[in-house]
Amino acid sequence: MAKPAKQEFVQHITPRNENFSQWYTDVVLQTDLMDYTPVRGAIAMKPYGNRIWELIRESLDKRFTETGHENVSLPMLIPESLLLKEAEHVEGFAPEVAWVTQGGNEVLAERLAVRPTSETMFCTMFAKWVHSWRDLPMKYNQWCSVMRWEKTTRPFLRTSEFWWQEGHTVHATAEEAQEETLLMLEIYRELCEDVLAIPVFSGLKSEKEKFAGARATYSVEAMMQDGKALQAGTTHNFGTNFAIPFEIKYLSKDGDLKYCHETSWGVSTRLIGAVIMTHGDERGLKLPPRVAPFQAVILPIAAHKGGVMEHCEKALDQIKAAGIRVKLDDRDNVSSGWKFNEWELKGVPLRLEIGPRDIENDVATYMRRDTFEKGTLPLENLAEEVKKLLDEIQENMFAQALAFREAHTKNVYSFEELNEQVQGGYAKTMWCGSLECEENIKEQTGATSRNMPFDQTPIGDKCVCCGEKAQKVMYFSKAY
Amino acid sequence: MAKPAKQEFVQHITPRNENFSQWYTDVVLQTDLMDYTPVRGAIAMKPYGNRIWELIRESLDKRFTETGHENVSLPMLIPESLLLKEAEHVEGFAPEVAWVTQGGNEVLAERLAVRPTSETMFCTMFAKWVHSWRDLPMKYNQWCSVMRWEKTTRPFLRTSEFWWQEGHTVHATAEEAQEETLLMLEIYRELCEDVLAIPVFSGLKSEKEKFAGARATYSVEAMMQDGKALQAGTTHNFGTNFAIPFEIKYLSKDGDLKYCHETSWGVSTRLIGAVIMTHGDERGLKLPPRVAPFQAVILPIAAHKGGVMEHCEKALDQIKAAGIRVKLDDRDNVSSGWKFNEWELKGVPLRLEIGPRDIENDVATYMRRDTFEKGTLPLENLAEEVKKLLDEIQENMFAQALAFREAHTKNVYSFEELNEQVQGGYAKTMWCGSLECEENIKEQTGATSRNMPFDQTPIGDKCVCCGEKAQKVMYFSKAY
Repeated sequence: MAKPAKQEFVQHITPRNENFSQWYTDVVLQTDLMDYTPVRGAIAMKPYGNRIWELIRESLDKRFTETGHENVSLPMLIPESLLLKEAEHVEGFAPEVAWVTQGGNEVLAERLAVRPTSETMFCTMFAKWVHSWRDLPMKYNQWCSVMRWEKTTRPFLRTSEFWWQEGHTVHATAEEAQEETLLMLEIYRELCEDVLAIPVFSGLKSEKEKFAGARATYSVEAMMQDGKALQAGTTHNFGTNFAIPFEIKYLSKDGDLKYCHETSWGVSTRLIGAVIMTHGDERGLKLPPRVAPFQAVILPIAAHKGGVMEHCEKALDQIKAAGIRVKLDDRDNVSSGWKFNEWELKGVPLRLEIGPRDIENDVATYMRRDTFEKGTLPLENLAEEVKKLLDEIQENMFAQALAFREAHTKNVYSFEELNEQVQGGYAKTMWCGSLECEENIKEQTGATSRNMPFDQTPIGDKCVCCGEKAQKVMYFSKAY
Repeated sequence: MAKPAKQEFVQHITPRNENFSQWYTDVVLQTDLMDYTPVRGAIAMKPYGNRIWELIRESLDKRFTETGHENVSLPMLIPESLLLKEAEHVEGFAPEVAWVTQGGNEVLAERLAVRPTSETMFCTMFAKWVHSWRDLPMKYNQWCSVMRWEKTTRPFLRTSEFWWQEGHTVHATAEEAQEETLLMLEIYRELCEDVLAIPVFSGLKSEKEKFAGARATYSVEAMMQDGKALQAGTTHNFGTNFAIPFEIKYLSKDGDLKYCHETSWGVSTRLIGAVIMTHGDERGLKLPPRVAPFQAVILPIAAHKGGVMEHCEKALDQIKAAGIRVKLDDRDNVSSGWKFNEWELKGVPLRLEIGPRDIENDVATYMRRDTFEKGTLPLENLAEEVKKLLDEIQENMFAQALAFREAHTKNVYSFEELNEQVQGGYAKTMWCGSLECEENIKEQTGATSRNMPFDQTPIGDKCVCCGEKAQKVMYFSKAY
C-alpha cells in the first residue's frame, strides 16, 4: 500500500463557508463516528462515536446520581391503548410511530409502538408504584434508544432511531415538579457548557414549540457555526396532565388522595452533532477534551532510533496513570505526516511528538488542536503539564464558541432587522406572545422561536412582528 | 402507618424445599428488583435490579476493553431479507420474532424484525467495514435489549424483552476465531465465579444445543439450588458460516481475497436470576458483595441519643471514601427490627449497627448476610475492616455454592443412575455422541445435555443410553 501524500487525508472536506451541510456530512463520514445502515434513517454508531456518547453518559449519570436519581429499564414496546390516554401526546407522536403488529406467527390483537418516548409507559408503572407521600419524589432515568419514523434524516441530528436518556419524575407538589424541571435544565446547561464546551441559552419554549402533553417545556439552545440554533436538551413540567388520565395519585400526610405532578427531560446523540457543528473546522473534528475518546495522542518520531519507543511508552504510562485518555500511535505502515492529519481529522485535542531531538532536550513537542499552537513540555513532569494544557484547551474552546455566538446574536427592533439577523444568527427581540406572529415570522423568515430567557428585562415595548404591545423577550433563529 | 411486626417482612416467602419456583417468584417480587408491565412477558427493571445489571456491565466492560474490544450501537430493527440470508439462523429465530410492519401511516414494503440477536446486522456492516488484513481483527460489542416472542416467561429467566451484551468479532483465520471464542468463555467464567460467586462448568455444547448458525457453541453452566442447570453465558464460533452469505472478505497480506472467520458471545439479565437462585434463602436475596448495589448498610441504634448520628455519618464517609457502596438508613418511621428484616431481604452483604454501647466501646456491631455471624469492628479502622469482611463474604459465598454443586454432581454409569441423578443435580457421564441418545435421555428423564468439559478423560467406555462405544464425556441435567 503506497503511503498517501500529506494532503490526501483532508482534501475531501468541503469548506464550511462554501456548503456547511456538505462540510458536516464530510466530517461525519471521514471521522469514522458512524455509518449508514440498511434500515431507513437508522445509523450505526461506530466505536469512535459510541465512545463520545458513553463519555456523555458517564458525565450525566454522575450528575443524576448526585441529585438523587436512579436508573431503570422499561419495555421498548408500548401498547397503543397507553399512547392514546393523553390526547395531545398521541397527536404529537402518532404520525412517526413504528408499529409492531406481529409476534412470531401470531397477529397481535393490539398494535405495539416501538417507543418514540416513554411517558405513557412510565406513567403506567408510576400508577402501580406510587402509594403515599413517603414514596415521593420518585426520580427515575433510563438510557435507551427510541424510534421516530422521520421522513428526512441526517446523521446524529435526526435519525429514525437514536440513543438518549429520558428522565421521568413524580412529585407531591407543583412547586417540587417545577424545581425539578429547572434543576435538570441547569444540569443540561452544565453538560453543554462545562463538558461539551458549547455555550447555550436556557429558557422557556413557546406554547407552539412545547412538548406534546407538557404544561411547560424549557430548553437549552446552542448555536452552530452556520448561525442556526440546535435544541440541545429539553425539560418538561407536565403538572397533572398525565397524572389525571393515568390516575397517578398519592395519599398525602393529611390522608387525602391527591394527583401527582410530573416532569420528564432528555438529551440525545444529537449532542454529538452539536459538538461537531460547534467546534469543527476544515481539518475535521475538534473535540473538547472532556468528551474526547483520546485526549492526547503520542507519536514517536524516528521510532527506529534508540530510546524513542522507550520514551514514548514511558510517557504513555505516566499520562495514563494520571487518568488521561491517551493513545500511543506506533503504527509503522503510515508516515508521521499521515498520522498528523489523521489525528487532526479525528479532533484529538493534544498531539505529543517524541523524537531523538526531543529526548536530547528532555521534552515532548506538542500541538494543540484548538489553536494549532506548538510548544514543548518537560518530560519529567509530562502528565501534569498535559493535564494543564487539556484544561486550557477545554476553556479556550468554550471561549471561542462563546465569542462566535456573541458575534452572531443581536437585539432586533424591526421585522427587517429580524429577517436579516436570522439569516445567520440569533435575534433577541420583543414579541406580543401570539401564535399568529410566531407563525408569520416562521413563514416569512424561516426562523422559529427558540426560547424566552429567564431574564425578561424588556428591550422594547412593541412586538417585532405586529407592532402591538410586547409581552415577552424571545430568541428567534433558524434551527436544526 | 402502624409499625409492622418483625416477622411480617419475610413471612410470605415460600420455603425453597417446599416450592422452589414459588420461592423464586416471592423473592423477586418482594425485593423490588423488577415489576410486570402491560406488555406480555416484558418486565421493568426497577432501580435495585437495574443497578445489579449496571455493576455486571461495568465489570464486563473493563474486561472487554482490556482484551481489545470496543463498544458500538447498531439498529434495533433488522430487515427480514437480512435474517433470511443464513438458513439455520432464520429457522432458529423466526418463530419468536416481533415484526414491525408499519411506520407512521405507511405500510412497509419489507417487514422489520425487532432484533432477537444481531448477527445479521453486524455481518451486513462488517461486509462494508472490512477490507484488508489490516482491519482485522475487528472486535465489537454492544449493550442493548433484544426481543423474543416467548410463550411462557419468568422474570429475568425468560422474558420477551431482555437486556444483554452481544460481542461480534471478525478474524483473518480460523485459529484466531477459535482463540477468541475460548477467551470470551474464560471471561464469562471469571465473571460468574469471581464476581457473581457462581461456580460454572465451561465446555462445548452438543450439535443439538448449539446456536442457530454456529459451527461450535461453548457455554458456562451454573447450578441452581434446586439442582437444575442455568446456562449463564455462551460463546459461538461461526467459522465462515455467516461470512459466506454476507460476503465478508478481506485482502490478505499475499493479495488474496479470503473469507473472514467470526464469533459472537453474550450474557444477559438472566444472570440476575442466576444470582438469586444460587445464593438466596428463606430470608430473601443474598448478594455477592461485588454486584451488591449496597455492599454495607449502616443502621443507627437509638438514633436520638447523643453522638449516634454523628458516629454513623462519620462511618458512612469513611467507608464511602474507601470506594465501598454503603448506605446509611436513617429512616425514623420504621423500627430497627423492620430495617434488619428489610436489608436481609434485599441481600445486603454486611449490616453495621452503631448505638450508644458500640460508641462506648469504639466499635460497630456487624452481621454478615452469608452466615448471619455477628461481631464487632473497631471504629477507627472501620473502612479497612469492612473491606476485608466483604472479601471474606465474597469468597465464602463462592465456597458455599461450590460445595453445593459438588454435592449435587455425580459420575453416573447407567441409565437408572442418570435418571435418578438428574432429578436434583448434574450427571457426568459417557455418551456415544448421537442425537438419538440425546433425545432419548431428554424424553425419558427431562434432562438435556449441558456441555462437554475440556478435560475429556473418559470415566467409562459405554454410552449411558445405548451402551454402544462412548465418544464423549458430557454433563446432563434438567435446565432453566
